[in-house]
Amino acid sequence: MPKDVPTDMSGFNPFGDLIGLQFIKCEGGQSRCTVEVQPGLLNPHGVVHGGVLYSMADTGMGGAMYTVMEKDELCATIEIKIVYFKAVRSGTLVCDTRIISRGKRVAALESEITNDGRLVAKASGTYSVFRAKEG
Amino acid sequence: MPKDVPTDMSGFNPFGDLIGLQFIKCEGGQSRCTVEVQPGLLNPHGVVHGGVLYSMADTGMGGAMYTVMEKDELCATIEIKIVYFKAVRSGTLVCDTRIISRGKRVAALESEITNDGRLVAKASGTYSVFRAKEG
Amino acid sequence: MPKDVPTDMSGFNPFGDLIGLQFIKCEGGQSRCTVEVQPGLLNPHGVVHGGVLYSMADTGMGGAMYTVMEKDELCATIEIKIVYFKAVRSGTLVCDTRIISRGKRVAALESEITNDGRLVAKASGTYSVFRAKEG
Amino acid sequence: MPKDVPTDMSGFNPFGDLIGLQFIKCEGGQSRCTVEVQPGLLNPHGVVHGGVLYSMADTGMGGAMYTVMEKDELCATIEIKIVYFKAVRSGTLVCDTRIISRGKRVAALESEITNDGRLVAKASGTYSVFRAKEG
Repeated sequence: MPKDVPTDMSGFNPFGDLIGLQFIKCEGGQSRCTVEVQPGLLNPHGVVHGGVLYSMADTGMGGAMYTVMEKDELCATIEIKIVYFKAVRSGTLVCDTRIISRGKRVAALESEITNDGRLVAKASGTYSVFRAKEG
Repeated sequence: MPKDVPTDMSGFNPFGDLIGLQFIKCEGGQSRCTVEVQPGLLNPHGVVHGGVLYSMADTGMGGAMYTVMEKDELCATIEIKIVYFKAVRSGTLVCDTRIISRGKRVAALESEITNDGRLVAKASGTYSVFRAKEG
Repeated sequence: MPKDVPTDMSGFNPFGDLIGLQFIKCEGGQSRCTVEVQPGLLNPHGVVHGGVLYSMADTGMGGAMYTVMEKDELCATIEIKIVYFKAVRSGTLVCDTRIISRGKRVAALESEITNDGRLVAKASGTYSVFRAKEG
Repeated sequence: MPKDVPTDMSGFNPFGDLIGLQFIKCEGGQSRCTVEVQPGLLNPHGVVHGGVLYSMADTGMGGAMYTVMEKDELCATIEIKIVYFKAVRSGTLVCDTRIISRGKRVAALESEITNDGRLVAKASGTYSVFRAKEG
């Protein structure tokens, strides 16, 4: 994992590890993470569970946020909507995330998830940003 | 698991097994599923990853859909939006899902996720319903 | 209009007036507003434009928010998702809104829009709440 | 209005007329429409009502859909989520819409709304596509 991944994204991430999520890039308000399709990630129909693609977007958005936050800032997911375009059965999933708006209290992000170059899902989310001392 | 859970929800569900998801109920356009918080489901901040709560909603919506579909019908998630209210660190997560509208081609569902009785997240999703022969 | 409607909801509301929106109730984190279907609210297919139903939800959420905010607080819509169930051609539209979660910085609300008793659309939104002095 | 705007977008559109919406372009799965800010479009706080921006997105998505549908096809909005970035008080609003996925039964679209070049809101929606004979 590259050096530009922030500390809290590079180490202990139990659920990320459970689904095999790896950060490739995390800088300048953007991130890229990947998941290799494994049998354990499938739903009853033999396709990758929608929750896997969603988890890539949610994690990727958190990773992108940490590249633009100050040391005493924290963030929390307000909401995310994900739309599915194609079923995925094998190969590598790549999730590219970018911040599309950074307000004082709220940031908006988008994630595009591709499978072997095909767009398979897209997510749109908002995060609350606040000072740690604000509790 | 009760007998009224449809075959394809009761057996082989690799990703559901990975996160410890269990169906408690699946009938009449409703479902209830649970997940016990385990260390492997946490994010870098020590709280349950948003993707776990999302996966409960997505799986619970699929379970509710199968109780109202005819034998030659299939369904697919179009999109789901989830809003988070509180961080979860331990205990049991319960996801209650119900169909709020069943049109000819599209159904709308809602899931409420509680942790020890507190509402911690709510999801709103739509599913496409179609005949298997339509491909 | 009842006395418990806050000042800024009861008077000058140009767009509300343009679509004929009227508040029936605004109290305790809830609101009800109505719109009578008029020819000017139709889309090219002769059904009420989706933007009318959306505007009822957005306005109704603002009205519900003002019943729970303190004097020096302001709020702003972060995002709203609306799902449509049935086309509306005539009659009265009623939009019932309630706050489902009130956090320190973010509140979540839901609006159900009915037409002669039938649920025709449902919206889920989030609002940012902040002190006026915070700018 | 250019010739490539489909018949049912170029003529009778009462609600579009009410808010002053004009189509600039409608072709190849894309559309552009505009609204001039008028006093009648403001909310109680003197900023353009969120429902106006939403209505531009919903109408623009319909316009983009009609450029890719066959003669016996119809479409209906399933759901739209809109996120707001900045308040708008004057000037021209421009809404650029494009189809990001066109499946057999469902299409996904995005609209970006700008005000004097600044991105002020973004919407993500899904439409159901079906044959007229399917009712």
